[in-house]
Amino acid sequence: MSEGMSYADAGVDLDAAERTKEGLRELVASTRDRFTLSELGQFGGLYQVPDDVDQPVLVSSADGVGTKLKLAFATGRHDTVGQCLVNHCTNDILVQGARPLFFLDYLATGEMDEQVVQDVVRGVAIACRENACALLGGETAQMPDFYAADEYDLAGFIVGAVARDRIIDGSAIRAGDALVGLASSGLHTNGYTLARKIVFEAMGLGVDDELPGTGRSVGAELLAIHRSYLGVLRAPLEARVVHGLAHVTGGGIPGNLPRVLPKDLGASVDRAAWEVPAVYRTLQEAGGVALGEMDRVFNMGLGMIVVCDAVDVGTVMASAESGGVEAWTIGSIVAGQGVSYL
Amino acid sequence: MSEGMSYADAGVDLDAAERTKEGLRELVASTRDRFTLSELGQFGGLYQVPDDVDQPVLVSSADGVGTKLKLAFATGRHDTVGQCLVNHCTNDILVQGARPLFFLDYLATGEMDEQVVQDVVRGVAIACRENACALLGGETAQMPDFYAADEYDLAGFIVGAVARDRIIDGSAIRAGDALVGLASSGLHTNGYTLARKIVFEAMGLGVDDELPGTGRSVGAELLAIHRSYLGVLRAPLEARVVHGLAHVTGGGIPGNLPRVLPKDLGASVDRAAWEVPAVYRTLQEAGGVALGEMDRVFNMGLGMIVVCDAVDVGTVMASAESGGVEAWTIGSIVAGQGVSYL
Repeated sequence: MSEGMSYADAGVDLDAAERTKEGLRELVASTRDRFTLSELGQFGGLYQVPDDVDQPVLVSSADGVGTKLKLAFATGRHDTVGQCLVNHCTNDILVQGARPLFFLDYLATGEMDEQVVQDVVRGVAIACRENACALLGGETAQMPDFYAADEYDLAGFIVGAVARDRIIDGSAIRAGDALVGLASSGLHTNGYTLARKIVFEAMGLGVDDELPGTGRSVGAELLAIHRSYLGVLRAPLEARVVHGLAHVTGGGIPGNLPRVLPKDLGASVDRAAWEVPAVYRTLQEAGGVALGEMDRVFNMGLGMIVVCDAVDVGTVMASAESGGVEAWTIGSIVAGQGVSYL
Repeated sequence: MSEGMSYADAGVDLDAAERTKEGLRELVASTRDRFTLSELGQFGGLYQVPDDVDQPVLVSSADGVGTKLKLAFATGRHDTVGQCLVNHCTNDILVQGARPLFFLDYLATGEMDEQVVQDVVRGVAIACRENACALLGGETAQMPDFYAADEYDLAGFIVGAVARDRIIDGSAIRAGDALVGLASSGLHTNGYTLARKIVFEAMGLGVDDELPGTGRSVGAELLAIHRSYLGVLRAPLEARVVHGLAHVTGGGIPGNLPRVLPKDLGASVDRAAWEVPAVYRTLQEAGGVALGEMDRVFNMGLGMIVVCDAVDVGTVMASAESGGVEAWTIGSIVAGQGVSYL
């Protein structure tokens, strides 16, 4: 029998947890809006249902960063993955027409490194401010002998709102509608288990080596922040020209676009319509990955697909371009099911 | 350079993920209520703001199960940890007077074991039904070389609602108010890193061995489901006799009760007022843990503390007892700060 065991001996430091929480107070406060009724440290975060949404419907999504986190560990750069997470969640609810209200994060670590926690949450707070979303709460868990001392997992949860008569559910989609693809900023948060295997194992590169064809280091290219499409889609949504939206995440275009289409409609996509960025060509070649597999695992340069009437393509393209996001007409809605490539 | 790499080779099986999601459809559907507007598989879950709450304020919380999960791994029993998680989150928002609306889970695994995922989510769904909470969505992430093949982490997010004039914020608490302690069902979800170290290392026990003094196996005692206090507190909340509530989680009574007290008030707690269950006495003795440390790490047999006027103690006790939850008057509110023990 041992004598005098304590929580700290066992690897959980409640004092460090308290200090860390205090250090986050200002970051959290920087995201408050007029509907935020609580402060950090209460059991639950309080948020008033906004009075500027008619017949509000809440739209909610949970997501993680996945093994993109391994790039943060390898580079020591921890302030971008939180941005990826918030932007990913924002896009997931934007698909149904919702704007973000609030966000909560779950950060589980092996050891409470106060600087790393600060960096991660700073990234979360930056993206919360950019997406006009309150960081309402979260959980930072110390789990020694579960996570390595210098590793962590990061998940998040968003709640947004949309007026009932403005929900985008794909029911307005018709054969002949156009597909507008919006450029991704990189891999976003999908396919990292395969990408890491190709880059680090098959190619034998390190994070500081140049990723061939990209003109950027492996670290910079693979940590590129998941883009939020809230800013460039707000105007087309308000103008009611959007018939459907697909966030291109795990499963790629073939796995995500059919999720928002009516049962009897499919999509015809013209591969020649946009240029697949260098990172995908490099991964495909170095890994000898079949094209169909590339399509299912990666976004291939398109992070969001907009379905709209052909006459409204100009409105969508103009909004994207005014926000600095490249856009291409990549195909159209056709009778049938699933995605077929030209 | 290797040839023909695929996501499945790298350890991520999209087909298994799809099958697993299909297997969850019925579990998720079993939690639907009249405000749930979406089905599994949409990018975001849709939930109508309930029309039966006056001036609704949303209350939200994020939490994890922590290293209690190690007990699930060791026993192969995966259907209770989800119940712990939902009940924990329910209690966190109940503290502010809210009832649950919906819940989302985040489950990250090393390898997609369809049966384990089913078991975990079944637990989540059971507790969602018990707490009248819709399981609105979630994320199941495959993260090989991040989690061991047979391990997973589980976190959850809850959103509830409370009428604006029924928010419990502790402002009604006065010196002389009574403290009613409601029995926990065991360790709930706190202190497991220390408890496991004592039981498995210092005591050298296995999960099937009896935990001395408890009459139960280590596995049964340490996997006991975190109790939800929603059922037994609904009546006292509706009767408006509750001045404050503290969910006794990490930090114990001294770490949680002061969180809900006005700045100039403290709590006097009489240790003799309730019997500390055998599991805590065994842990304290076997680990040689200081009493103050026990108080900070464990709930010591009380999972929720109710602050109410002394004349309303009977109402709270009667509601607890009618729900099969033992309750004791454990002390009172006094001038000062923090928790002092008699």
